[in-house]
Amino acid sequence: MYNRSMESDSIEIQHIKLGLLGFGNVLKAFAELLPEKADIIRTHYGIEFSIVGIATNSHGIAINPKGIDPITALEVDDLRSLHQGKTIPDAMSFVQQCPADMILEAIWVNPKTGQPALDLCRAALQAGKHVITANKGPVAFGFRELNALAAQQNLGFFFESTVMDGTPLHSIGREALLAVEVTGIRGVLNSTTNAILTHMEEGGSFEEALREMQEAGVAETDPSNDIDGWDAAIKIVILANTLMGADLRPDDVDREGIREVTYEDIQAAVDDGMTLKLVCEAYRDEDGIVQASVQPTTVEPDDPLAWLDDTASAVTIFTDVIEEITIREGPASPRTTAYGMLVDAINITRGRR
Amino acid sequence: MYNRSMESDSIEIQHIKLGLLGFGNVLKAFAELLPEKADIIRTHYGIEFSIVGIATNSHGIAINPKGIDPITALEVDDLRSLHQGKTIPDAMSFVQQCPADMILEAIWVNPKTGQPALDLCRAALQAGKHVITANKGPVAFGFRELNALAAQQNLGFFFESTVMDGTPLHSIGREALLAVEVTGIRGVLNSTTNAILTHMEEGGSFEEALREMQEAGVAETDPSNDIDGWDAAIKIVILANTLMGADLRPDDVDREGIREVTYEDIQAAVDDGMTLKLVCEAYRDEDGIVQASVQPTTVEPDDPLAWLDDTASAVTIFTDVIEEITIREGPASPRTTAYGMLVDAINITRGRR
Repeated sequence: MYNRSMESDSIEIQHIKLGLLGFGNVLKAFAELLPEKADIIRTHYGIEFSIVGIATNSHGIAINPKGIDPITALEVDDLRSLHQGKTIPDAMSFVQQCPADMILEAIWVNPKTGQPALDLCRAALQAGKHVITANKGPVAFGFRELNALAAQQNLGFFFESTVMDGTPLHSIGREALLAVEVTGIRGVLNSTTNAILTHMEEGGSFEEALREMQEAGVAETDPSNDIDGWDAAIKIVILANTLMGADLRPDDVDREGIREVTYEDIQAAVDDGMTLKLVCEAYRDEDGIVQASVQPTTVEPDDPLAWLDDTASAVTIFTDVIEEITIREGPASPRTTAYGMLVDAINITRGRR
Repeated sequence: MYNRSMESDSIEIQHIKLGLLGFGNVLKAFAELLPEKADIIRTHYGIEFSIVGIATNSHGIAINPKGIDPITALEVDDLRSLHQGKTIPDAMSFVQQCPADMILEAIWVNPKTGQPALDLCRAALQAGKHVITANKGPVAFGFRELNALAAQQNLGFFFESTVMDGTPLHSIGREALLAVEVTGIRGVLNSTTNAILTHMEEGGSFEEALREMQEAGVAETDPSNDIDGWDAAIKIVILANTLMGADLRPDDVDREGIREVTYEDIQAAVDDGMTLKLVCEAYRDEDGIVQASVQPTTVEPDDPLAWLDDTASAVTIFTDVIEEITIREGPASPRTTAYGMLVDAINITRGRR
């Protein structure tokens, strides 16, 4: 495949130390994925990753410069049992003191402010560490600042998994959309609302579909972040700012969620051979300013956004050269999100910026 | 966008000389695109491309180490009027003597052998030049050899535009499918047959639809390469060999074209709410061997391959981590193919391999 097998003949192994900020579903999946993929990463890219620190809010913080076995970390109740040296009081101290080359960040974040992830990412970059985040907050609220901070020091600030999990989107922006003007972006990017709308098509009210999705673990107990379109707004802001050069914040998005969508609305669309989706859009207005919106939209059956069931998602990118590129992902999971972080780690190590 | 604007502050301009092998629709579109995108390429990537040679079969060959203005080249009848120095007798001499860093190859090719493009690409790499090809032949018939030849000399052998034009597919393979096992590939990759099948859905026989497509310039006068599934077979071979590590040749593909498809077949599918597509597939059999096929297939409406009209195309990649990634392109043109070659040129220059 490509030049990979040849690469491994000639290069020395690079040893890269990782600090995990957070140890919830995503970084636990990362800790499982890393040993599974260690051989291919060593053989094809000449890289060995080791975990030298893990920080959590309620299960302790561990730093060990000699390496923390990921499988052991998954088994212990309190990470402090794996710690070597003086106790680390909090996440900010962890970011500064962890002897890692890269911080992988996926801790709890306030969706309205991007904190504390934004401050922690900034501190990690200031401490000279590459940053990979799966949290949308730092990118939606701080992309320009953090990107410039990284670039000044030739560090990577990568975030493939923030939109559509590990499905390539930012790698396409970085490696393929090199000389196009992105003129518009249009997608279905929030899986919870999409699953609710899909279930409503099969009959039933918004409230019933929401309850079902909560019982299935797809919707959260407080679902407002998803159903009021905030998560979708954050995602379209990330895409508009990174791919279209915009400088939007989530509050700038003209946003309408699905709380008011009725079974009758859905059925009217279905009767016309259409389907109702929560569509995010970014486009340039007449003055060349990038505008963004999130709103329930009736889509035609030949629309690439039409046949997305349950937690599937898709985005179409419009450019001045290639008219339309649509990227669609199937089922998502913490494992696919973790994979995007692993790809970011490989790409930063091999010098991608 | 990403780190681009920062990059330009610090890096020196790289001057890269290009030799164009062929000057048909694709490389003419490239000659138009290059000046249009020169500013963005210089500003964001610190690269200046100049054309130092163009070789054609029937309109002469020109080499000028000081540069050939692309717009002038588009206007002259005989390229020899732009040539400096001793006459270049043929394409092989051009590849060896042209003082280019990269050869962009898009000349006539025999789809059954990949020649003469295969030999010319090999010669260019042997002469120490990077190679970018838009021709499927050299990749379908010589990927392993040419890739190894390039890797030995740290040269690029890139071919983004061979499948789905400039739509990112090989860049995804190179930059995002880094640590997955690709377990299968499934796509609609031949636009001529897709346009014929789409037109047959609207009523009419295969012969009528073919004639219409020939009049519209979509199908060639001798359409057998497309309608017998050979073009599709070549494309699935390229994807299987580059993404799944297979070593197939187009003859290995279990291939059935659309010549025998009747209006009744199409209508039967439509009556069942389905649609008929020429689907290419690659998958591992029980022994782990990659098998490939091309055949008319009835697809369900929620299939990502279902709603591709006219010359649209799409491919789904299945992996052991991310279950499904589908890439879909809208209308294609020589300009989108040329764009893929331009992206390859930028990526080779900035060290991607």
